[in-house]
Amino acid sequence: MSSEPALTHLNARGEAEIVDIGDKEATRRRAVAEATVLAAPETVAVIISGGLKKGDAVSVARIAGIMAAKKTSDLIPLCHPIALTKVSVEIAPLPDNTGLHIRAAAETTDRTGVEMEALTAASTAALTLYDMAKAIDRGMTVTNLRLLEKSGGKSGDFVRVA
Amino acid sequence: MSSEPALTHLNARGEAEIVDIGDKEATRRRAVAEATVLAAPETVAVIISGGLKKGDAVSVARIAGIMAAKKTSDLIPLCHPIALTKVSVEIAPLPDNTGLHIRAAAETTDRTGVEMEALTAASTAALTLYDMAKAIDRGMTVTNLRLLEKSGGKSGDFVRVA
Amino acid sequence: MSSEPALTHLNARGEAEIVDIGDKEATRRRAVAEATVLAAPETVAVIISGGLKKGDAVSVARIAGIMAAKKTSDLIPLCHPIALTKVSVEIAPLPDNTGLHIRAAAETTDRTGVEMEALTAASTAALTLYDMAKAIDRGMTVTNLRLLEKSGGKSGDFVRVA
Amino acid sequence: MSSEPALTHLNARGEAEIVDIGDKEATRRRAVAEATVLAAPETVAVIISGGLKKGDAVSVARIAGIMAAKKTSDLIPLCHPIALTKVSVEIAPLPDNTGLHIRAAAETTDRTGVEMEALTAASTAALTLYDMAKAIDRGMTVTNLRLLEKSGGKSGDFVRVA
Amino acid sequence: MSSEPALTHLNARGEAEIVDIGDKEATRRRAVAEATVLAAPETVAVIISGGLKKGDAVSVARIAGIMAAKKTSDLIPLCHPIALTKVSVEIAPLPDNTGLHIRAAAETTDRTGVEMEALTAASTAALTLYDMAKAIDRGMTVTNLRLLEKSGGKSGDFVRVA
Amino acid sequence: MSSEPALTHLNARGEAEIVDIGDKEATRRRAVAEATVLAAPETVAVIISGGLKKGDAVSVARIAGIMAAKKTSDLIPLCHPIALTKVSVEIAPLPDNTGLHIRAAAETTDRTGVEMEALTAASTAALTLYDMAKAIDRGMTVTNLRLLEKSGGKSGDFVRVA
Repeated sequence: MSSEPALTHLNARGEAEIVDIGDKEATRRRAVAEATVLAAPETVAVIISGGLKKGDAVSVARIAGIMAAKKTSDLIPLCHPIALTKVSVEIAPLPDNTGLHIRAAAETTDRTGVEMEALTAASTAALTLYDMAKAIDRGMTVTNLRLLEKSGGKSGDFVRVA
Repeated sequence: MSSEPALTHLNARGEAEIVDIGDKEATRRRAVAEATVLAAPETVAVIISGGLKKGDAVSVARIAGIMAAKKTSDLIPLCHPIALTKVSVEIAPLPDNTGLHIRAAAETTDRTGVEMEALTAASTAALTLYDMAKAIDRGMTVTNLRLLEKSGGKSGDFVRVA
Repeated sequence: MSSEPALTHLNARGEAEIVDIGDKEATRRRAVAEATVLAAPETVAVIISGGLKKGDAVSVARIAGIMAAKKTSDLIPLCHPIALTKVSVEIAPLPDNTGLHIRAAAETTDRTGVEMEALTAASTAALTLYDMAKAIDRGMTVTNLRLLEKSGGKSGDFVRVA
Repeated sequence: MSSEPALTHLNARGEAEIVDIGDKEATRRRAVAEATVLAAPETVAVIISGGLKKGDAVSVARIAGIMAAKKTSDLIPLCHPIALTKVSVEIAPLPDNTGLHIRAAAETTDRTGVEMEALTAASTAALTLYDMAKAIDRGMTVTNLRLLEKSGGKSGDFVRVA
Repeated sequence: MSSEPALTHLNARGEAEIVDIGDKEATRRRAVAEATVLAAPETVAVIISGGLKKGDAVSVARIAGIMAAKKTSDLIPLCHPIALTKVSVEIAPLPDNTGLHIRAAAETTDRTGVEMEALTAASTAALTLYDMAKAIDRGMTVTNLRLLEKSGGKSGDFVRVA
Repeated sequence: MSSEPALTHLNARGEAEIVDIGDKEATRRRAVAEATVLAAPETVAVIISGGLKKGDAVSVARIAGIMAAKKTSDLIPLCHPIALTKVSVEIAPLPDNTGLHIRAAAETTDRTGVEMEALTAASTAALTLYDMAKAIDRGMTVTNLRLLEKSGGKSGDFVRVA
């Protein structure tokens, strides 16, 4: 593959493997990902406030995201199992109520980064919101599921330019 | 909550539960979801062709999506466990090589639908592609993660208008 | 073993197995279990109300119980996998604030009952409450984890006498 | 929340998260939990001795408890994944044969303690005993599911006063 | 591929999928698989009898096999999730004590067969025996892991000719 | 048990436990295992080449093996959870096309070895090949599932003599 970029998760024969991180140092690493669920304003209102109700819907999605982060290496075939030291998921309506924004952060002190954990938390929280509201709004779309920032590790820090 | 739409997964006190489907009929149900991974054209090229290589990357993502569909009720808190009778995931480059399109289909003969299974397959395949290519293109974004069509069940068929 | 009662999950050689339910009829079955977490009144107050806070703690425990019900056959070695059609978990303070009461209900239309699912939901909700409050009250005790009622299936209905 | 005790697993907005342990030191930690299954003496006899049989029932419960300890972070939403270095489960009849006593111990060298692992082992072993004997004694009750002792970590050692 | 046999789990483009069984009938199906762990006679003796000890080793392997059968669709990517109605695992020394023989049986009333469940139970029981004895006999080998018989379903019955 | 070899996973009472590795040092450890799937030459041909097709079958088996390695402690009751730093699975036809050879390697920097992880990867890859080809060749047999080599840790290195 000479000078072309190559996929790090495939070996020289193009076969998938969990790449060797045994020589990497265990350092503090952090990643933040986001996702947006576009929905009708009435759907957003029902999810967020529920009138005077307790708003269990947002809690369900937050916990689903947190638990999914811990299952990342079970879902993404070539991810290393990682000892997460922190996971948080924040969910808030978009300013104009056209959807819900999810921000998931993960941290570890390990040999590899946690961006897949943050992304898995964000996508699972988004799908959980969809699940609970799908009976009233089947047109919801998840968009902008992506890494926001990443630090720690030798590949350098990353901050998405808005 | 009178005439407002309500979240079916919350009871009258606003508390989450797995809703009762015991009285629903077991019928043939099908759902198709999609997701798009936006990426640099060189990234798409490496994922899809890998020059003369075997292109294991697309296989990995396809299998990850298929396996994730079977874990849906383990990830989405209020989803019923479902006996899937078919799961398929198709991955293809966008016409202009600006990304990869994923189309996931799931089927069952059960008391509830499989749209969450199709969506979970699509999102996991998308994140798996991201995982394998992230070392060369950290700016990838998953977008348009959504239901394309749904049939079976009493809530009626759904086909997304493009 | 002649006339003595025998454990149904052990065969004639005393070896564990998942017993044959292939000839049993798929019928509507329901079970309700309970558990009580004894705790200091201040602990109960913090869990339930959290002052003016949102009380996410109870939501977390409820969802943990619901998700655990779906993992029952993965936890209890000789349980059959079951297609649950409904799961709910209710959590409320004891009248005198000396603890929290959990009531978990599960339903299915299958060849075997769901009391283990209800019990697993109740115990996991209880341990989740313990987990969140343990930093302030390590003396909490889970008690009265037991079946309240059970219906459907040929072994007859059961209702615990208080 | 000023001077009141607060739940460490909720942030300042009352939202659940997996709390940050990245700055805690990895030290040797140990926890022991117990549970008691109250049962009819005949039930205890069948479980423990099985006449001249091999007593597979106690083995099944012990292994279920051990395996459940490894699933703790998958069951308890806000638990960190932990690399357990030891797990054991002991099961014995109560002196008067009115039930079975379970004692579960877990150890790690990690940044957080293992009391939830010990408690999860104890409760799962208890429910597994219940599962195997429920056909002959549906009135069994799990009681005294609680922490016995805990050592390691900066929150100090704990030993339950009988 | 014209007249050649083709892999049923790949579609016309050679891509893996969980094949459609929605039109198949739910019938009673059964499969039996075996595996043999070749080991030194002293190893077999320690595993089976353990002198006057309780022989927990065989119980552990039997339960591991039973529990693994329930995880088959989580392990084998293209397997359908199946509602098992019975699972049993028998373990016995070979006549000449040169190893241990495992026989695993699985049953269901579903749209597809359970041979992968029986094979997964057999292989996991075998590896569990290996795990417990590896410190004293690292040369153990698992052999003859294969289907013994299969019945139910339209592909016809199968009985291995010795 | 005096001078006889004893099973390390059973305590002095013959009861299974996850043995204490808290005092062992975290060192670089590696294990390689193999398995052979004996099959008809036509079956091997269909799996490997698939004519001009993409050969997704081998990819599926490779990924199944890799993912199973990460589930080892969930399958083998007394295995410690391990942070794998590398996993690879190679699959190739036997020289005479009478079967397929699988070679699985696992690595970690932890307190215990990874031979069960390598063996679990090899056996799951083998069973996945079986699953995909069983409709055309039900007589396939998995044989020679065993450790090839092992290094790191105080029990010394192991290399199988052919």
